[in-house]
Amino acid sequence: MSKQCAILFGGVSYEHEISIVSAIALKDVLDMPISYIFCDKHREFYLISTKEITSKLFSSGAYKKSPKLTLKNGGFFQKSLMKEKKLDFDFLLNVVHGGDGEDGVLASMLTFFNVPFIGPRTDAGVLSFNKLYTKLYAQSIGVETVDYEVLKKGAYKISLSYPVIIKPLRLGSSIGVSIVRSEGELEYALDVAYEFDDEVLVEPFIEGVKEYNVAGCKAGEFILSMVEEPQKEEFLDFDKKYLDFSRTSRVQAADIDAYLEENLKKTFQTVYGKLFEGALIRCDFFVVDGKILLNEINPIPGSMANYLFDDFSEVLKALSKYLPKEKIIAIDYQYIHSIQQAKGK
Amino acid sequence: MSKQCAILFGGVSYEHEISIVSAIALKDVLDMPISYIFCDKHREFYLISTKEITSKLFSSGAYKKSPKLTLKNGGFFQKSLMKEKKLDFDFLLNVVHGGDGEDGVLASMLTFFNVPFIGPRTDAGVLSFNKLYTKLYAQSIGVETVDYEVLKKGAYKISLSYPVIIKPLRLGSSIGVSIVRSEGELEYALDVAYEFDDEVLVEPFIEGVKEYNVAGCKAGEFILSMVEEPQKEEFLDFDKKYLDFSRTSRVQAADIDAYLEENLKKTFQTVYGKLFEGALIRCDFFVVDGKILLNEINPIPGSMANYLFDDFSEVLKALSKYLPKEKIIAIDYQYIHSIQQAKGK
Repeated sequence: MSKQCAILFGGVSYEHEISIVSAIALKDVLDMPISYIFCDKHREFYLISTKEITSKLFSSGAYKKSPKLTLKNGGFFQKSLMKEKKLDFDFLLNVVHGGDGEDGVLASMLTFFNVPFIGPRTDAGVLSFNKLYTKLYAQSIGVETVDYEVLKKGAYKISLSYPVIIKPLRLGSSIGVSIVRSEGELEYALDVAYEFDDEVLVEPFIEGVKEYNVAGCKAGEFILSMVEEPQKEEFLDFDKKYLDFSRTSRVQAADIDAYLEENLKKTFQTVYGKLFEGALIRCDFFVVDGKILLNEINPIPGSMANYLFDDFSEVLKALSKYLPKEKIIAIDYQYIHSIQQAKGK
Repeated sequence: MSKQCAILFGGVSYEHEISIVSAIALKDVLDMPISYIFCDKHREFYLISTKEITSKLFSSGAYKKSPKLTLKNGGFFQKSLMKEKKLDFDFLLNVVHGGDGEDGVLASMLTFFNVPFIGPRTDAGVLSFNKLYTKLYAQSIGVETVDYEVLKKGAYKISLSYPVIIKPLRLGSSIGVSIVRSEGELEYALDVAYEFDDEVLVEPFIEGVKEYNVAGCKAGEFILSMVEEPQKEEFLDFDKKYLDFSRTSRVQAADIDAYLEENLKKTFQTVYGKLFEGALIRCDFFVVDGKILLNEINPIPGSMANYLFDDFSEVLKALSKYLPKEKIIAIDYQYIHSIQQAKGK
């Protein structure tokens, strides 16, 4: 029987709109029935008709006429006249980019309420959403990254040499990111980044650096995508990245030798480790002087990086069979019983 | 007017029972009305009568006769005949020790549904619940810790010298912890720890090490407790620690010089940083050769470390005025509008 999937999208974040774009892009990609679950800016959930889904449905506010859903033990429920009906799906795909989705918040809720989902778990979200924690994590698993320093709101002095790239510590999608070539441009760029976060990451900007993306997941064995060398002009600004989130057409594999390809894929597997089990992630790597550096982990990549895989639906179906299970913890009140006995109660 | 507080306790974790003990201990400590919210092993919420709360209520299963609560936008709701009633409180105190409480899961849910709460936020939970991440965090803020190595299930070789202390990577309360004095004892101790987690932390066991605890929070300014030198026989096993969670009587301040006291408090503040805003935490430090090492961060300490403060209720009330607020993110569909215009739709 064909699997059914739910796609959770929206959320309260700067990436709310690109989440909508990602979700819609998947409609033409997946060869299975989809239930769309929208989280609006008031954090109410709506069941969106797959036939009627368009970006305008959300920008116009018309989505509010859709049935509301409640997330509770076991799944999402829709009120009908006399009782509640549970929304039926085999697994949920978390496509909420940025806040709520990638920071571990929705992962926590889905875990708590025992909803089977594809996406980063709480800890994986926290470690990849915050670019400093990603650096610390990479270091702990022996994966190299670009140099960095972290500035806190109010700080305007850097110790790295120009040019540098400035990023809000907790955002994806190039929002608030600037390249700074000289001290004169620094203050403005920092102010832009501080708009989005109280802390910013400063890294050397490496002119013309070779960049490679690999996506994948662990479904028993690893399933890895082709290696892509993303096209870029300097770096993608938000408008271009926005369009990037609607990508569904396949790309060319990067023209690299087998040795580099193998090493990129090996590094991907090290990054994925145990932490990202249950998620389909994309890692963006730099190659500098033959060394592989981890640039970024996208635990919920734009349009789920579907365009990097030969058969994306099959990847999701395989992964859905290997979602992490919660450890079963026996709560038996053994200690309370023994203390009560000791007290003679 | 007097503040009202809700105490959230229970949760699905190995520390379910000590959370009950902690919650009950607070009844005699707080000088304000308390609403008790219990999260049972099925992750259902119950409103427990403050008059009737005893450990037996839970071990006997009698709590199930209490009214059920639903967590949703804005708070916890109780069904009455015709409509739902919102549970009234000024702030909630998260006293769910271990899983659900300290791993960021309930923090995520309270954040998502906009419930004002005292406790670690999602990221603070994830970084302190996992002892490896605590090490990485400490390193990033320049705070020293004890040496360590991490073993994964199936590994039985260590490189540190004996004696060592073995801890499950993601548990508090001394559960699954052993001191190992020679190779002959290693396998058994590791098997015990692997019962609770697939990864374990190994640290040198420092005989007779000086240990000091400091609790506190940031309510505008820092409010710090006295410094305690916990009494110990080797280390507390679970039974003793269990009783420790019911502590309400004040302790003696540690007999240390002003210089060490100041440095312990300064280190506490560095650890607390921005990450733990909204939480009342306890840091356990070692002092070795005059150096302060961070041993552990308890983001939800047993009975909230109430016994370390002169006026615990005042501390909570002060902190409740400085709970982190979510950044307001305008969701205005600016990009979707502009793309629709570009398409001439």
